[in-house]
Amino acid sequence: MKTILVLGAGKSSATLISYLIENAEKEDWKILVADRDLAMIVDKTNQSSFTESFALDMMNKELRRPLIERSDIVISMLPASLHMPVIKDCIKFKKNIITPSYMTPEIKELDKDAKNADILIMNELGLDPGIDHMSAMKIVDRIRDKGGELTYFESFTGGLVAPESDNNPWNYKFTWNPRNVVMAGQGGAAKFIQRGLFKYIPYNRLFRRSEVIEIKEYGKFEGIANRDSLKYRSIYGLDTIPTIYRGTLRRVGFGKAWNYLVQLGATEDGYIMEGSANMTHRDFTNSFLAYNPYDSVELKFRHYMKIDQDDEVWDKLVWLGLFEDTPIGINKDATPAQILQIIMEKKMQLEPHDKDMIVMYHKIGYKIKNKHSEIKSWLVFIGKDQKYTAMSDTVGLPLGIFTKMLLRGEINLKGVRMPIMKEVYLPVLGELEKHGIIFKEKVEEMSEEKAKLQ
Amino acid sequence: MKTILVLGAGKSSATLISYLIENAEKEDWKILVADRDLAMIVDKTNQSSFTESFALDMMNKELRRPLIERSDIVISMLPASLHMPVIKDCIKFKKNIITPSYMTPEIKELDKDAKNADILIMNELGLDPGIDHMSAMKIVDRIRDKGGELTYFESFTGGLVAPESDNNPWNYKFTWNPRNVVMAGQGGAAKFIQRGLFKYIPYNRLFRRSEVIEIKEYGKFEGIANRDSLKYRSIYGLDTIPTIYRGTLRRVGFGKAWNYLVQLGATEDGYIMEGSANMTHRDFTNSFLAYNPYDSVELKFRHYMKIDQDDEVWDKLVWLGLFEDTPIGINKDATPAQILQIIMEKKMQLEPHDKDMIVMYHKIGYKIKNKHSEIKSWLVFIGKDQKYTAMSDTVGLPLGIFTKMLLRGEINLKGVRMPIMKEVYLPVLGELEKHGIIFKEKVEEMSEEKAKLQ
Repeated sequence: MKTILVLGAGKSSATLISYLIENAEKEDWKILVADRDLAMIVDKTNQSSFTESFALDMMNKELRRPLIERSDIVISMLPASLHMPVIKDCIKFKKNIITPSYMTPEIKELDKDAKNADILIMNELGLDPGIDHMSAMKIVDRIRDKGGELTYFESFTGGLVAPESDNNPWNYKFTWNPRNVVMAGQGGAAKFIQRGLFKYIPYNRLFRRSEVIEIKEYGKFEGIANRDSLKYRSIYGLDTIPTIYRGTLRRVGFGKAWNYLVQLGATEDGYIMEGSANMTHRDFTNSFLAYNPYDSVELKFRHYMKIDQDDEVWDKLVWLGLFEDTPIGINKDATPAQILQIIMEKKMQLEPHDKDMIVMYHKIGYKIKNKHSEIKSWLVFIGKDQKYTAMSDTVGLPLGIFTKMLLRGEINLKGVRMPIMKEVYLPVLGELEKHGIIFKEKVEEMSEEKAKLQ
Repeated sequence: MKTILVLGAGKSSATLISYLIENAEKEDWKILVADRDLAMIVDKTNQSSFTESFALDMMNKELRRPLIERSDIVISMLPASLHMPVIKDCIKFKKNIITPSYMTPEIKELDKDAKNADILIMNELGLDPGIDHMSAMKIVDRIRDKGGELTYFESFTGGLVAPESDNNPWNYKFTWNPRNVVMAGQGGAAKFIQRGLFKYIPYNRLFRRSEVIEIKEYGKFEGIANRDSLKYRSIYGLDTIPTIYRGTLRRVGFGKAWNYLVQLGATEDGYIMEGSANMTHRDFTNSFLAYNPYDSVELKFRHYMKIDQDDEVWDKLVWLGLFEDTPIGINKDATPAQILQIIMEKKMQLEPHDKDMIVMYHKIGYKIKNKHSEIKSWLVFIGKDQKYTAMSDTVGLPLGIFTKMLLRGEINLKGVRMPIMKEVYLPVLGELEKHGIIFKEKVEEMSEEKAKLQ
């Protein structure tokens, strides 16, 4: 019998734990689930006899270590900032560990220690990062195996609301951490490279420099540049590729409306607004507009931002409640970003019957014997309900599938790794298809002229 | 005989040292001038027999302390970040010290130590901060003495090029530290209060929310909000004033053009641009624009920023050299802000015969027995030449005059202070007038309605 330890039983662990329970009998597994909150554990395990529950603080090493010692593999679903002590324990007790979080430089430095302990520390094995790497590398390797040379690489992912639940003017609801949405793009210019030229987009322009993408049957989306696309050159072995660009997907029109909030200053997180605890939504908006005792907040906003009478972006801003005389509802003064998040959460929550949707899109150009072609590859995946969301499935299934492969002895990797090798991505993507996580693809030849514009 | 120690013989010490030498015989002074660079000292002292020169590193306490021990007063013209060890020495050796730099919280904490040592640590005794405080407090106290209540307070200062030397489309040349010009407004939203409402302007809008000010005989200027106007409420004893706003002056049109550089991302200082060491000005500009192998950098810029064919802002941008195929001329990759500064320094340096100009402007509203009035008070002061600049005069003379008062025993202040009391500002402003630093003033009654709009 093999023992699996799952650390964290939050929203994102639902599908993972369910997958592990479904496979437990056949694979002869015992699943230990630890979380600070027992109710969360019970919600995910349904008290299955294949599981054991541990309500404890994972940062308490006296409580955590005995569980790690008992296990054959640890799956850490903890917030990224809490992984480190767990990973160090795994090295100490020689246990494999996998996570859906980014491989930080600090984790990367543990490669030698991991190899000495004969264990695998597999990072970035969720959706984004995770399925993005695996699906992209499958295409990249295929082109290389045919002797092709990559000329450009673009990749986008978005966590959105499913079309059947899409009933607001932003075509957006929070399906994940709202704070990340409000803070998106802050902290530095977006960097990428196009035809060998480094390109930089400052935050104040980021949401107006998006790329429109159309996906068959699902309509148009816009791709907004991620902060650093450049690091993926070395990760994917594309060090000399002249164009690389990664971004986040939203429905078309989101970026234009969001940009008004950026321009207003409503997304800033660097200072506390004096007196904001007693503000209404309308006061909050007015704080960023010039003083005038006669003009309405609405007119000042429209004039300041030069929004035409018939511009539909106005509906989005009004719908969001920016001009409502409703108290924000906070106990103490907060930053603009914190207040904006609260205002948005009043409107953009998923309703009980809403479903979420994951969209991923790769556009990869290549040249074989001077013939230019482009592959478009895309995934649209809709969640089952509010528990087994598309987000939970696409994060949890790669972890579950890989755990199975590892415990069966089908994987022989050691050290600090990412899922970019065939022996990992082929079987994982293969089993994901059985769960409906299926990429579609279209290949087109293109002219030299068109290729030059990418 | 009294001994004065001047620490720092840079550009801003020229008038100060000259003033001290002129008064040395009559006042029976010996002036010690210390700087790392002997040539700078000689340039300022002309080897006057009233002076002694010390070429040394002021951060070396073994060399610094004997000079402080010999002195009756220390004038620190060092960069603000280097004041602290000198001030601590002054407490140790019980010597008065004055500086033109901001009073930091760390300096403020030394108040008790200074009083125990029976010394004065006078801060903010230059132009801005300095003359701004003194001239504003003179008006504020006058209104209060008449039983008036202040209803609004606005204050602006600018270091500009004199009209006779103003021959570029920006109407601007560097008369002080260029780095400060490039970084102006970064690091947080501008905060002020208007009619009791807190107002916040984010960096991306700062240069478009300026206030136009007209000064008789000198034409129009624009006032751009400083980062934090709120702290002046307590400094000036105006804690309940409903409107307070402080800003920087430029010629009208500067802010609009500068805003394009902000929007472009060219003022950012948070990342190093890869490959920038080998870029031309044009490459630098192109890094912030979308890739297109057919369109010119100029057209891409105009389109991106929506600049009309006949908009004169375009002349400013072209004149600055943003589209020139000239190497930037740096040895290693730099940040956008560093590169922009280098590009600007090629065009915006003062020429040998250019003169600088200081402009200060206060607009203060008040109410006496329900009658609303407004005082406008302004100073325009033009420098003599490139050595005795308006900046050097307006920073150095307050320090020199106050030194004379202190050594004559006319001032009895102790502790950590700012020049906001009558006993300081009246005599200092009085003697400044003899040097041509004269405020003009206009008082107007105003209607209740007009007062409400301020």
